[in-house]
Amino acid sequence: MTRAESILIVGSMAFDDLELPSINARDVIGGSATYSAFAASTFAEIRVVAVVGTDFPDGTLTALRARGIDTAGIERAEGRTFRWAGRYDADLVHRTTLDTQLNVFASFAPKIPAAYRDTPIVLLGNIHPALQLEVLEQVTRPRLVIADTMNFWIEGEPALVDKMLKRIDTLVINDEEARQLSGHHNIRRAAREILTRGPRRLIIKRGEHGALLFDDHGVFAAPGFPLEDVVDPTGAGDSFAGGFVGYLAGQADLSPMALRRAMLYATATASFCVEAVGTARVATLTPKDVADRVTSIRSLYEFGAATM
Amino acid sequence: MTRAESILIVGSMAFDDLELPSINARDVIGGSATYSAFAASTFAEIRVVAVVGTDFPDGTLTALRARGIDTAGIERAEGRTFRWAGRYDADLVHRTTLDTQLNVFASFAPKIPAAYRDTPIVLLGNIHPALQLEVLEQVTRPRLVIADTMNFWIEGEPALVDKMLKRIDTLVINDEEARQLSGHHNIRRAAREILTRGPRRLIIKRGEHGALLFDDHGVFAAPGFPLEDVVDPTGAGDSFAGGFVGYLAGQADLSPMALRRAMLYATATASFCVEAVGTARVATLTPKDVADRVTSIRSLYEFGAATM
Repeated sequence: MTRAESILIVGSMAFDDLELPSINARDVIGGSATYSAFAASTFAEIRVVAVVGTDFPDGTLTALRARGIDTAGIERAEGRTFRWAGRYDADLVHRTTLDTQLNVFASFAPKIPAAYRDTPIVLLGNIHPALQLEVLEQVTRPRLVIADTMNFWIEGEPALVDKMLKRIDTLVINDEEARQLSGHHNIRRAAREILTRGPRRLIIKRGEHGALLFDDHGVFAAPGFPLEDVVDPTGAGDSFAGGFVGYLAGQADLSPMALRRAMLYATATASFCVEAVGTARVATLTPKDVADRVTSIRSLYEFGAATM
Repeated sequence: MTRAESILIVGSMAFDDLELPSINARDVIGGSATYSAFAASTFAEIRVVAVVGTDFPDGTLTALRARGIDTAGIERAEGRTFRWAGRYDADLVHRTTLDTQLNVFASFAPKIPAAYRDTPIVLLGNIHPALQLEVLEQVTRPRLVIADTMNFWIEGEPALVDKMLKRIDTLVINDEEARQLSGHHNIRRAAREILTRGPRRLIIKRGEHGALLFDDHGVFAAPGFPLEDVVDPTGAGDSFAGGFVGYLAGQADLSPMALRRAMLYATATASFCVEAVGTARVATLTPKDVADRVTSIRSLYEFGAATM
């Protein structure tokens, strides 16, 4: 493995109030940037641009720095931190948003520090597409730009989402978002349509059913890793994206096969995330933890000799 | 490949009235035995035990025989053939049963012809568990017994389902049935519970998301093959089971790796089934069709060199 490149992550940092089947947890540290940064820091040096309020604990920033994450781009603004509250069904698949308080996030305008502008890999968490575009105006020709979005922006800001799609390499969304963005229910048609709109690659996350990568090389299917104990699915998608870019940061090229292996590292990283509440597990991952789980995931595929 | 062994298939033969997004089709030849037999006949000699009414077309029996399927065990009874009517949602995932007319199937008592009793592989389609047990009373120590069941029997005949589970090697059900049978939502816990109740192996079908095999060797994940044109999902599960036993009939052993390869052949077979209305496509499959699609399915997994 070559020395890993740095990754710039822009997204939310938040308090989450989680009603889970096994526990009700309040003031859980969350947010897309937090999950992705902890996940990606297993493999690479991370730079985060986000905003927190005066109520956000110093201890979390210390924990991020202890993982080699540069927190100089995390702005501390007057006011309260972004807060999300949600309730998960017993199946841990469906969830209901109970409350969203934007707080300091409402006036977030990402300012990329000068030292971050040439970061070769950029991960744009699920924030307003106008902010994602503002980030891209401030960086200098990154090698890889990967972005997440959600139904709220697809419906509410279609023109800006379209503009964002033309500026990124890789879009990471879930199956419902792919259907809404494309207008096709069939996932293969949905993928084909989205790939005409800008990104070179599309990753469609399907929760416990794994994820699909669509690119010039074809389709790759990463299986979901069947876990006996799923505790908290919050942040799984952000951890997936973090594991994906984290693995690629250590690769000399972005070949189709490197991207496919990154899908397995992403799957492994996300599978750890859901085993604990909040970022508890993803904040302590080691490269060996993830590599061992990748081995387990690969064993899901083993079918012996190729002569069939 | 060694010479394929014979397979005994017991199940329903039916007329289906299908309300599909693309077409409304009446009097479509269906039934679990029909789909499984056409599918498995791609690979092996098939013997079918089922019942049809006087209204069932001779042409279908001729078509079955043209595929090398022995139809001597198909009883023609006075009365009308079993009929099912259903409507599929636009997503082709959810369906509603509009009508079920058992007709001659109501008094079906499978009689296994003497010449069939030593068939080494037995596939029990989704029929009353009492009938599945009656079949097993009449056969002589098959090498492999695979059975399907459904929510209706799990709920209505739990004691007989339990008895059936103790007499089979491999259970093939979908994820909702696995949850109902085990009382666990988590699919891995569900599998573990079901495997304590008799079968050595469990296959859990998850529609477009593929299928999982649980056995002594661990877990194997066969991906769903992403198709652009899904026309009619009816019979996909029965075609999956047919492809599974069909592949195994040509294998010298039932090793974990042979079973895993069978999962890919099953997936390939089912993927053809859904591309046409009824049995139209599965009735004309060639070994090369299936092998080529297995290659495509394997390409969904390719991630290059093993050094990661």
